[in-house]
Amino acid sequence: MRHFFNPSSMAVVGASKHKIGHQIIQNLLYGYKGVVYLVNPHYSEIDGTPCFSSIEEIPNPVDLAIVLVPAPAVPGILEACGRKGVLRVMILSAGFAEVGDQGREIQDRCTAIAKKAGIRIWGPNCMGMVDVPGKHFFTFMRPSIYEDGLIPGRISLVVQSGMLSGAFLAEMGRRTIGIGKVCSIGNKSDVDECDILEYLLGDADTDVVAFYLESIPRGRLFAELAGRSTKPIVVLKGGKSEAGARAALSHTSSLSGNFRLLESVLKMSGVTLANDFNQMIDLARALAMMRESTSQGRTAVLTFSGGAGILTCDLLERYQLKVARLTEKTLACLSRIFPSWMPAANPVDLFPTMELRGRAAAYHGAIACVLEDPDVDVLLIHHVAGLDDDVIDLAALKNKAAGAGKSMMFWLVGRQEASRLFRHEAQANGIPVYEEISRTVECLSAVARFRPRKRFGRGVEGSSLPLPAVDLKEFFSYAAGERIWDEHDSKRLLARGGIPVVEEKLVSSLAEAKEVARDMGFPVVLKGLLPGVVHKTELDLIHMGISGRSDLEDAYLKISERMGERGRILVQRQVKIDFELMAGFLRDDQFGPCVMFGLGGTLSELQPDVVFALAPLERTEALELVTQIRGKRLLEGFRGMAPLKKEEMADLLVNLGRLGDAYPQIDQIDMNPVVVRRGSPMAIDATIILKTMRSGQEYRNER
Amino acid sequence: MRHFFNPSSMAVVGASKHKIGHQIIQNLLYGYKGVVYLVNPHYSEIDGTPCFSSIEEIPNPVDLAIVLVPAPAVPGILEACGRKGVLRVMILSAGFAEVGDQGREIQDRCTAIAKKAGIRIWGPNCMGMVDVPGKHFFTFMRPSIYEDGLIPGRISLVVQSGMLSGAFLAEMGRRTIGIGKVCSIGNKSDVDECDILEYLLGDADTDVVAFYLESIPRGRLFAELAGRSTKPIVVLKGGKSEAGARAALSHTSSLSGNFRLLESVLKMSGVTLANDFNQMIDLARALAMMRESTSQGRTAVLTFSGGAGILTCDLLERYQLKVARLTEKTLACLSRIFPSWMPAANPVDLFPTMELRGRAAAYHGAIACVLEDPDVDVLLIHHVAGLDDDVIDLAALKNKAAGAGKSMMFWLVGRQEASRLFRHEAQANGIPVYEEISRTVECLSAVARFRPRKRFGRGVEGSSLPLPAVDLKEFFSYAAGERIWDEHDSKRLLARGGIPVVEEKLVSSLAEAKEVARDMGFPVVLKGLLPGVVHKTELDLIHMGISGRSDLEDAYLKISERMGERGRILVQRQVKIDFELMAGFLRDDQFGPCVMFGLGGTLSELQPDVVFALAPLERTEALELVTQIRGKRLLEGFRGMAPLKKEEMADLLVNLGRLGDAYPQIDQIDMNPVVVRRGSPMAIDATIILKTMRSGQEYRNER
Repeated sequence: MRHFFNPSSMAVVGASKHKIGHQIIQNLLYGYKGVVYLVNPHYSEIDGTPCFSSIEEIPNPVDLAIVLVPAPAVPGILEACGRKGVLRVMILSAGFAEVGDQGREIQDRCTAIAKKAGIRIWGPNCMGMVDVPGKHFFTFMRPSIYEDGLIPGRISLVVQSGMLSGAFLAEMGRRTIGIGKVCSIGNKSDVDECDILEYLLGDADTDVVAFYLESIPRGRLFAELAGRSTKPIVVLKGGKSEAGARAALSHTSSLSGNFRLLESVLKMSGVTLANDFNQMIDLARALAMMRESTSQGRTAVLTFSGGAGILTCDLLERYQLKVARLTEKTLACLSRIFPSWMPAANPVDLFPTMELRGRAAAYHGAIACVLEDPDVDVLLIHHVAGLDDDVIDLAALKNKAAGAGKSMMFWLVGRQEASRLFRHEAQANGIPVYEEISRTVECLSAVARFRPRKRFGRGVEGSSLPLPAVDLKEFFSYAAGERIWDEHDSKRLLARGGIPVVEEKLVSSLAEAKEVARDMGFPVVLKGLLPGVVHKTELDLIHMGISGRSDLEDAYLKISERMGERGRILVQRQVKIDFELMAGFLRDDQFGPCVMFGLGGTLSELQPDVVFALAPLERTEALELVTQIRGKRLLEGFRGMAPLKKEEMADLLVNLGRLGDAYPQIDQIDMNPVVVRRGSPMAIDATIILKTMRSGQEYRNER
Repeated sequence: MRHFFNPSSMAVVGASKHKIGHQIIQNLLYGYKGVVYLVNPHYSEIDGTPCFSSIEEIPNPVDLAIVLVPAPAVPGILEACGRKGVLRVMILSAGFAEVGDQGREIQDRCTAIAKKAGIRIWGPNCMGMVDVPGKHFFTFMRPSIYEDGLIPGRISLVVQSGMLSGAFLAEMGRRTIGIGKVCSIGNKSDVDECDILEYLLGDADTDVVAFYLESIPRGRLFAELAGRSTKPIVVLKGGKSEAGARAALSHTSSLSGNFRLLESVLKMSGVTLANDFNQMIDLARALAMMRESTSQGRTAVLTFSGGAGILTCDLLERYQLKVARLTEKTLACLSRIFPSWMPAANPVDLFPTMELRGRAAAYHGAIACVLEDPDVDVLLIHHVAGLDDDVIDLAALKNKAAGAGKSMMFWLVGRQEASRLFRHEAQANGIPVYEEISRTVECLSAVARFRPRKRFGRGVEGSSLPLPAVDLKEFFSYAAGERIWDEHDSKRLLARGGIPVVEEKLVSSLAEAKEVARDMGFPVVLKGLLPGVVHKTELDLIHMGISGRSDLEDAYLKISERMGERGRILVQRQVKIDFELMAGFLRDDQFGPCVMFGLGGTLSELQPDVVFALAPLERTEALELVTQIRGKRLLEGFRGMAPLKKEEMADLLVNLGRLGDAYPQIDQIDMNPVVVRRGSPMAIDATIILKTMRSGQEYRNER
C-alpha cells in the first residue's frame, strides 16, 4: 500500500490541458516532490511538460499510475501497466459497476487483468487520495479546497462515496479541523477499507482513522483489525436499513438485521460508531486530542453561565459520565477567588468572579485550582470568544493540563472572527473545540469509553475442553433433507457442547409420559414436536404447569390429536424462572460466525435488546458482551432476584460460539428462552438450523 | 406586559458615566424612540442629557423604570416608583435570592413593596429585554452584540439564565439566525415565563417562542397556555436530574421524576422539547420557517453525493419520517435530465447529471420535477457553497415551493464566505439551513410532528357521567390516620368511579374462602392485605393459580400465619392475561393533578415506558396519550394477541383523572398492573394514597 501513498514516481494517464485532466496536474505540482510523467496520445506537452503517448514509453520505472481516461479505455491501460511493470493503479474515472451491467463488465475485466499482472487497483469511481500534511493531492478536486486553508492534522479519513471527499475537505477547512490522509475508495474493486485500515494503523502520521462506509464485505477482517488496533477508529455506516430484508427463520437472524449486528460487533472491537459526517469528525478529533487519562471521565465544568453549567451536568449524567466531586482543597482554592457569598462547587460558575475580578483572573484562577485536583480527569471549559482580548493562553494551558495528566475541551460561542482565531489556536495546540454542549459531552463519552482491545487473537481460552466428536447425522432424526432440528435434537447437541439444558425426555405413549413425569416430579411441561415447526406456542403444542396425572392425560390427548401421525412428544421439567434471556449463533455475510446475547420474553421482542460478537469468542469477551445490553440492570439482582452468574453465562456463550464455529453445516442456533433461576442460565427451548446449499457459501472474508 | 416591551417613556435608575450604567444609555440610544430619563443623584448630566436625582423628580409620566443600582438600594427605589406611579420596573441588578439568605430577604421586601403598590417586577438578576426588529436594547449587554450584525427575525427567546442571553445573541449573529425578542427573566420574582408566554402568543411579530428554563413553578398554567397556542413553542429544560429526589411511595410518583412527567405533559400540550441551546434555536427556526403542509413529512432528498443521500434516508427512517415515493411522472421528468444509464429515484443523486449538464441545470431541472410531485411535502436539498457562482435563486425557489404548498430546507457545506452569504440569503427568504444532516432531519421531525393543540379547555367530555357521591370515610377501613389504602378499598372506590376492576371478595374464614372460590370458579388468587403494605409479593402474601380446594386450604393457612392477627384476606378471580399495562394519578408540584399511563411488568420497571397528562383529561387526549409510549406496538395486536381497545383504555384514564381530581384528599393512585385480556383493560391491583398534612399544600399554580 505504501506506493499508493508515497510513490517515488507517478504517471498521469489521461493528463490534459482542460478540466479534471488539467486540474490533477496542478494538484500534483502543489506539493508532490516525486517525478510526474504525463500520458496522453493527443498532446506532445502540457504546460511545458512533455507528454508520452503511452505509459510504456516512459523510460523510467513508475510506482503509481493515476488513470482518468473513460472507462472503456481502462482495460487497455491496465494491460499496458502490466507490461510496463506498474503495479499500483489508481482509477479515478467513473463509468464502472456503479452505472450498471455494462460498466460492471468493464470493471470485472479490469480486475481480471490486474490480478493476472499482480497489479493492485484503487477505485475505480473515486476521488483518489489526499495527504494534507504531505501535500499529496492525488485527485482532481479543485485547488480551491487547499487554497481555502486546509489544516494538517492527524485524523485520517476513508470515504466510500466519491463526491464527499471534496465537500468534506472544504468543510473541514471551514470548521478548522486538522486532517491527515483522506482516501476515497469508490467502487473498491480491489483495495478496500481493510487494506487501508491496515496501512493507516501502521502510519506514524495518523492517530485516528474515521470511515464513511456503505458496505463492509470483509467485515470480519475489519473487526479483527480494529480489535488489534491501539488507535481509535470511528465508523459511520450508510445504508443501515438494507439489511432489514434478511430472511428471518430464527430470532437470532431476524434480530441481527437493521444495523444491530454490525454495531455491536464493531463496538466489541473497540470501534466508535458515528451517525453523521460532522459528528464523525468531531468524535475522531476528541479521540485524537484527548489522549490523557480520561478513563474515569470525572469532569469539571468551568462556565461563564450558570445555565450552561447546569445543562452540561444534565448531559454528562445522561451520557453516564461523572460530574467530578472536587476535593476540599480545590473548593478552598476556588473560594479564595469567588465572591464571599458564593459557595464553590462543580459546575464552577465563573460569572460572579468575572464581575468581581475580571475575566482573565477568573479563568486563570479557577483553572489553576482545578488542575491540581486529583479527582478531576477532564476540564470542560465554556468560553465566549471576542468579548475582550483573549484571556486564555491555550498553549500554556494545554501544557499544564498534559503535565497534570488531564484532558481538556472547550465549548465556544462568540463573535465570528474571534471564534475562528480561537479555533485555529486550539487546533494548533491539540485542544478540541465544539459549538454545541451536547456534542462536547457526546465526544467526551466516546473518549471515556474508548479502550484499545488488543486481545482479539481469535484463539479461544480454555480450549482444552474437547469439542464433542459427534457425527451430526446421529442427531438427525428426520428425513435427510430437513434443515430445522426440533428442540430435543437441538438441545442434545448443545448439551454435548457444554451448554446447560433443561431436563426432558421423549415419550412414545401416555403410559410412558406418566412414568417420566412421576420420576421427574410434577409440575411438568408437555410439548409436541413437529418437523420444521419452530413456533410451537402458536400451534398450541405446549402445555405448561401440568400438575398431576389427570392434567397430563388431558394434555397428552390434546397434543396427540393436534399432531396426527407426525412428530414426537416431549416431557420436560417445569422450572421456576427469575427472568428470561436469549442466546444464539449465526453466520453473517459480512462478519462470519457470530454469537448473540440478549433479553428474552415478550417485551424484549417489542423493543429488542440484543448484542453480538464474533465467534468463537474468549471468556473475557463473553463477560463483556453480557454487560453490553441496555437492560443490564436486570442481571444485577433486580427486585430481590439473585444476580446472573456472569461466569456461567459467559461459559454458555463461549461454548455456543465454539460449537457453531466447529460445525460448518450449522447455519443458525436459537436458544430462546435461556431462563435464569438463582443466577444460573439454562436453555429451555432451542432450534438448530442447518445450511441449505443456497446459503452454504462461505462468508466473503475468506479470500 | 405591553409596557415592558413598548414603553412610551423610560427611566434608567442608576445611569452612569461608566460601565454598565453607561452602556445601557448607549443601548437605548441605538434604537429606542421613546423618551428616556436618567436618574442618578451623583450626576447632573450624562453625555449632555440631564440627570434626575430621584425618579420622583421626573416631571412627566414614566411607563417603565430600569434599575441598575445595588440590591440594598432597590427597595427604596421601588417605594419611590410606587409614589411616582411607575408600575413597570425591570431590575437588572444582581445580589438578590441568587446570593443566599441576605439577598433573598431583600428580594422578598421588593416583592412585598411592589405588590402593595401594584408594580410588576421583571427580574431581578437578569439581562433585561432585547427586541431585535424593534431595536429595543433594554439591557446592559455590550454594543458589540448588535454591531456584529444581529438579524431581525420572528423567533422570540425567553431565557432564565442571565448571562446566556448575551452570548446567545452573539452566537445567533454568527450563525445567521433571525431573532425577534429576547427576554432574560432572571430570578422571576414576579414576571415569569407564563406572563411572557401569554404576551408573546399575542405578539404579531413572533412566530415561535423558545424557552430555556430551570424551573417552571406554574407548570400547569404554562402547559395550558401552550395547549391553547397555535404558535409552536420550544422548551429546553435545565436541571433535569433534581426531580429524582422525590419520595417514591407509589410507582406513579417514582416514575414521574427525572424529567419524564414534565416532558410528556409538555409534549401533550404541543411543546417541542430541546436538549441543547443551538438545537433549540434550530428547532425553533424550522418550526417558524416551514409553515407549509408538512404533516405527512414525505421528503424528497436532492443531493450532490450518493453517500449523503443514503445517510439522509437512514436518518429519515430513524426519525420515522417518510422518504417520498416519487410519482411515475416525476421519475420520467428526472429521467429526461439524468444520464441515460441512471435510474431516477429518491434520494435524487444529482452528481452524474451535474457532470453531464453542469450544476445549475442539474439543480434547476431536478427541483422543477420534484416541485410538481403531489406526493412530496418537503424538499431536503444538499448544497455545496462556493464551488462556482451560486446556482440556486433562493427567493424564486421559496416562492415556487410555497406556491406548491411544499416546505424546503438545506444541508449546506462549503467554503467559508460563500456559506455565510448563502445562509444570509436563505434567512432573508425564510429557508432553514443546517450544517449537519442529522440536525436537518431532527428539525424536520419536529415540524412534521407539530400540531397546534387548541383544545385544552380542561372541561371534560362526557362529564354527564356522575361522579360517585361518596364519603371517603366509608371506604376507609383502617384507623383514621392511615394514608395508604389496601387494594380492596382502593378498587372499590375506583369501581365507583367507572374503572373496571377484577372480581374479588373479602373472606373472614377458610370456609368462606372456599365458598367464594367455588362461586367464582377455580383457579383463584388468594391475597393477604396488611395495613400500609404496598408490595405484597415481597412478603409472600400472594398465592396465584390456586386450582382446587386443597390448594386453597394450604394457601389460606400460610397467608394467615404470615399475617398474624392483622389485615384481611381476599379471594380474587384469576384472570388470563395477554399483557400488562399500568395507570396512575398523582399531584405534581408544578403541574398539579396528572394521570400516568405506561407498560407494566418487570421489564418495564427496568426500562420504564410511561407518559403523563394533565388531569382531568378529555377522551381525545386520553386516546392520544395511549399512543405516546415507545412500546405502543404491544397495543396494536402483537404476536397474535387482540389489540388494546383504546376507547376502553381512554375511558379508564378519563375516569381515573376525574376521580383523582374530584377528591382533593387523594394524593396518588397506583394501578399496577392494569391487565389486558382480549383487548379490555382491568385493574388487578391498586393503591390509593391520601395526602398527609405535610404534602397537603396545594400545587403552586393557584395564585
